Amino acid sequence: MSNSAPLRLGIAGLGTVGVGVLRITRKHAKLIEERTGRAVTVTAVAARNRAKDRGVDLKPYAWEDDPVQLATRDDIDVFVELMGGSDGPAKASVEAAIAAGKHVVTANKALLAHHGQELAEAAEAAGIVLRFEAAVAGGIPVIKALTEGLAGNEITRVMGVMNGTCNYILTRMYAAELPYDVVFDEADKLGYLEADPQLDVGGIDAGHKLSLLSSIAFGTQVNFDAVELEGIERISIRDIEQAADMGYRIKLLGVAQMTGRGLEQRMSPCLVPAASPLGQLEGGTNMVVIEGDSVGQIVMRGAGAGEGPTASAVMGDVMDIARGLTISTFGKAASKLKPATPAKATVPAAHYLRMELLDKPGALAKVATVLGEAGISINRMRQYGHEEKTAPVIIVTHTCTREAIDTALAGLGKTGVVEGDPVAIRIEEV
Amino acid sequence: MSNSAPLRLGIAGLGTVGVGVLRITRKHAKLIEERTGRAVTVTAVAARNRAKDRGVDLKPYAWEDDPVQLATRDDIDVFVELMGGSDGPAKASVEAAIAAGKHVVTANKALLAHHGQELAEAAEAAGIVLRFEAAVAGGIPVIKALTEGLAGNEITRVMGVMNGTCNYILTRMYAAELPYDVVFDEADKLGYLEADPQLDVGGIDAGHKLSLLSSIAFGTQVNFDAVELEGIERISIRDIEQAADMGYRIKLLGVAQMTGRGLEQRMSPCLVPAASPLGQLEGGTNMVVIEGDSVGQIVMRGAGAGEGPTASAVMGDVMDIARGLTISTFGKAASKLKPATPAKATVPAAHYLRMELLDKPGALAKVATVLGEAGISINRMRQYGHEEKTAPVIIVTHTCTREAIDTALAGLGKTGVVEGDPVAIRIEEV
Repeated sequence: MSNSAPLRLGIAGLGTVGVGVLRITRKHAKLIEERTGRAVTVTAVAARNRAKDRGVDLKPYAWEDDPVQLATRDDIDVFVELMGGSDGPAKASVEAAIAAGKHVVTANKALLAHHGQELAEAAEAAGIVLRFEAAVAGGIPVIKALTEGLAGNEITRVMGVMNGTCNYILTRMYAAELPYDVVFDEADKLGYLEADPQLDVGGIDAGHKLSLLSSIAFGTQVNFDAVELEGIERISIRDIEQAADMGYRIKLLGVAQMTGRGLEQRMSPCLVPAASPLGQLEGGTNMVVIEGDSVGQIVMRGAGAGEGPTASAVMGDVMDIARGLTISTFGKAASKLKPATPAKATVPAAHYLRMELLDKPGALAKVATVLGEAGISINRMRQYGHEEKTAPVIIVTHTCTREAIDTALAGLGKTGVVEGDPVAIRIEEV
Repeated sequence: MSNSAPLRLGIAGLGTVGVGVLRITRKHAKLIEERTGRAVTVTAVAARNRAKDRGVDLKPYAWEDDPVQLATRDDIDVFVELMGGSDGPAKASVEAAIAAGKHVVTANKALLAHHGQELAEAAEAAGIVLRFEAAVAGGIPVIKALTEGLAGNEITRVMGVMNGTCNYILTRMYAAELPYDVVFDEADKLGYLEADPQLDVGGIDAGHKLSLLSSIAFGTQVNFDAVELEGIERISIRDIEQAADMGYRIKLLGVAQMTGRGLEQRMSPCLVPAASPLGQLEGGTNMVVIEGDSVGQIVMRGAGAGEGPTASAVMGDVMDIARGLTISTFGKAASKLKPATPAKATVPAAHYLRMELLDKPGALAKVATVLGEAGISINRMRQYGHEEKTAPVIIVTHTCTREAIDTALAGLGKTGVVEGDPVAIRIEEV
């Protein structure tokens, strides 16, 4: 049915994932050919440092210093971009590959979160396939599930824990009763953090991923700038313990849903029930939850990063191309993706609040008044003994909007009895 | 890239799933066309009873009494087989569709478990696509994940809870502390059971599904006859309570893995850790676990049956065909699928044993002797008070082979101190 000539790859970027892809193409050459009906070979590679020992023999492959040169070589059919970065060489070489009529497989969430629409349009105009399974949730074949397997559904909501480093930090804080800073340093020493840690702990990396899932789910143009981002830096061990005490875990959770007011995309710490699949997710594992009007809820769990899982996702895309799959990057023609109206968290929820209250008469009454004026009613409240000049107060609200919470937070700042910024965390009953 | 003429379906079987597919094609006509680039329409339908009110208007569709006639109509491109049954009209009409060059989408696990190899070969010879996502684990896009998304992996093990009725019965027995017979009758009244309940509680339906996953995972010809089948009929409330007491749940679990001795496929009740994803699976939900050499472990969870989820899976296949996907039925050319050597549970495990011991002097010693002679050492043992003339004895063994367990079971029957057949359940540390 499809082409039987070998499919020739050019791989740009030889970090762990690039090396993982090389290893799979060698170890499983026979299996890949049996499954796709054609050989998949690597013709050429590019990376910054040719001399570096990567534990894999590079002699069989032509070397290019410049990924753009690699992308346009006559002897490659698929350009595999594993360099990362939203601009620079990654963007230039992907554009060059598309212009040269090469298919593109990338693991680069930042590139697609920022330039997905223009790249998808270029791919469509050039008649090539641009795929990115490895960019979201590592080894979990979630792009495929959403774009293909569940294509008959109107997707109602997509949720996910998609940054393994944040999940590691949060679960480790809980298990070892350690403060954020200590666990952050541990994660750094273990090499879990991006060069710019904000990408991880600021929720940016996970936000990139959510914006890509949103586009497929709702047929909208990728709009990363509209993702409400909140990182995990302000989560304290006290928040984690309080949450646990009430039967919850704190996760950096992404939620995307189409509401009457527009597309809601948020990536922020949330309390989720401890007994739920999301609540039980430990360490670097990722989980994506997809809800569709026919299928109900589908939950997918797996390793969110690492050589093997990410290379597995890259190879899934490559083998699809070898089999002759033709599909639009975001599941429908790029020209038909609509700009979405961004909506701020419109779906009300209970919220967890923590603040440091100064030891002044009537302090708590002032807090209660501010909440009441914002239309927020209190479900539970706890005040702890004064160790210092302030005492921590924990409040769980009844269901309210984020708008009301923001009004209350602004009001609390003006009471003169709350020190610093209160922490507000949404409770997601997933 | 692909055909833009409407894709025309002929649907045979208008039970809940067939009606569900009709509903989706109507409700989501625009969404489907946007996603696939072509309209997907239903031309004709066939079912046993034309007069029956199915809550959906059938006037837009041509009617055929005979599914074979439907399968060969000039005005259909895809034959959607939703009648069920391993032979009879289902087989005849699928064969006719393939011979007439129509693509086939089916939800029929029994048909493929028994005739998958010959049908895949016929599909290949005819150059058509034969797909069956809806046949395994309802709405979970697991066939797609295994065949496509994880295609770059050597699959090491596939596991799954894939019969919602059995999982309903087992979780309900536990939650309500009710005996098997009572819950079986409940399930029957709720319409959860197949016309022949053995298909469910005997593990046959789930075994069919496992044999299909095995074929894709290991590149082997479907061999349902080699699945070691054991149903849930002999699981007592006592077993469930004992298991819970030790931190386990009892699930009808399918496991397929390639071992040094051959392909092991078993569908049987197992004890799994209560805190594991499989242990926490409740009611009619299905879960499939796929383990690959690169990806590690992928877990997928969702509704295993019902109109919406199953129709969602059918539509996934239909939309793949609309997009021009060409892929072999079991993930590689049917002619290249190898017959697998069946291996009986070769991977050792701890086992749970329950037997009714007669109140005779030295009875327990005899049991211990038989186990010892079979090479089985005891991890824990409990004997309960004699309520009747027999007393239940619960034993948890150290790791041993199934062969040793079978030897012991035969030996126990000859001791003269054990009444009836002991229950032996494998403990799977998933």
